[in-house]
Amino acid sequence: MYKLVTIGRQLGSGGRELGKRLAEQLGYAYYDSEVITAIAQKTELAESYVKQVVESNPSVNFPITIGHSFSFYPHVGNLNQMTNIYVEQSNIITEMADKSPCIIVGRCADYILRDRHPLRLFVHASPSSRIERCRKKAPENEHLTDKQIWRNIKRVDKQRAKYYMFYTGHKWGDKINYDLCVNTTDVDIKFIADAIIKLIK
Amino acid sequence: MYKLVTIGRQLGSGGRELGKRLAEQLGYAYYDSEVITAIAQKTELAESYVKQVVESNPSVNFPITIGHSFSFYPHVGNLNQMTNIYVEQSNIITEMADKSPCIIVGRCADYILRDRHPLRLFVHASPSSRIERCRKKAPENEHLTDKQIWRNIKRVDKQRAKYYMFYTGHKWGDKINYDLCVNTTDVDIKFIADAIIKLIK
Repeated sequence: MYKLVTIGRQLGSGGRELGKRLAEQLGYAYYDSEVITAIAQKTELAESYVKQVVESNPSVNFPITIGHSFSFYPHVGNLNQMTNIYVEQSNIITEMADKSPCIIVGRCADYILRDRHPLRLFVHASPSSRIERCRKKAPENEHLTDKQIWRNIKRVDKQRAKYYMFYTGHKWGDKINYDLCVNTTDVDIKFIADAIIKLIK
Repeated sequence: MYKLVTIGRQLGSGGRELGKRLAEQLGYAYYDSEVITAIAQKTELAESYVKQVVESNPSVNFPITIGHSFSFYPHVGNLNQMTNIYVEQSNIITEMADKSPCIIVGRCADYILRDRHPLRLFVHASPSSRIERCRKKAPENEHLTDKQIWRNIKRVDKQRAKYYMFYTGHKWGDKINYDLCVNTTDVDIKFIADAIIKLIK
């Protein structure tokens, strides 16, 4: 039985949906990348927010207030600030993991929690499947071509790979860094979630 | 429910053990790389052997007569012969898959059976874990250093990658070609088999 599950994921692979479904069905807390970054960045919010997070019912899902994956990335001015945020995030992730069973998406959680032996998932899919999923999730007024969407996907992939390498020294998405790499191409995420729940239990 | 499971695997990752456990527990037939190659190479055996294979009880496991993974590789003299063997293998694999539920290890079965949508597994592990597993499985009179074992592993990896690329046009071990990549480092294969059986059922 795994009490901690970390999810690395390619943009448009459905990793976040998988994480939410796992959390809902298992009654685990769910934290994703943006939530954790926001906590660490907005220090004025941090205390009360972290308190709420840490003391909350484990089954609570913290809502993401931003609409689309492309629109939010931390704009850190310098290395110090970036490192501070990383340290803050690491502390928050560790606290969360110690407090209750949880699913954590992104933010090198697999690496930060390595001594606690989480189930480390990496979720990926084919380019066409990722483009399709991004298109479905895009705001109504966004009209990008496949080529434009793919360019954005590649940019985000690159950012995530760089971030992961910087803080862990490992290659993002390299299967050796995960217990299970799950291909979501042409598969219903619900089906995958049901199957992985059997693994976790 | 998956009736067909294909397993690609790194040498020393426990892929074959996993395949055998799955076959035993599910009551599926088990075919591995060497069995299939042997059928295709030894044409005088092929007819009766294939008949036996195709008509047999699905739960039969076909024994591997060779002792160690390093010691057997097809010595094909030319491209034609290699292609003939591949065609023979493909026919045999397709026949096997049509006849009864089965687990097939190696031989590009994932690609050959792609239209039948098997569960495509790739089994891998860290270098130290692979060296350790190879050492445990080596004949008693084999005394290789870690460096020598690793050199052999790399050689076999290279052969498998070349073979896979030649016949499928895809990169061997690239996670996008599999539904699930399973890391067996520091995990009991029995535990993994139990978990994957839950996925298959």
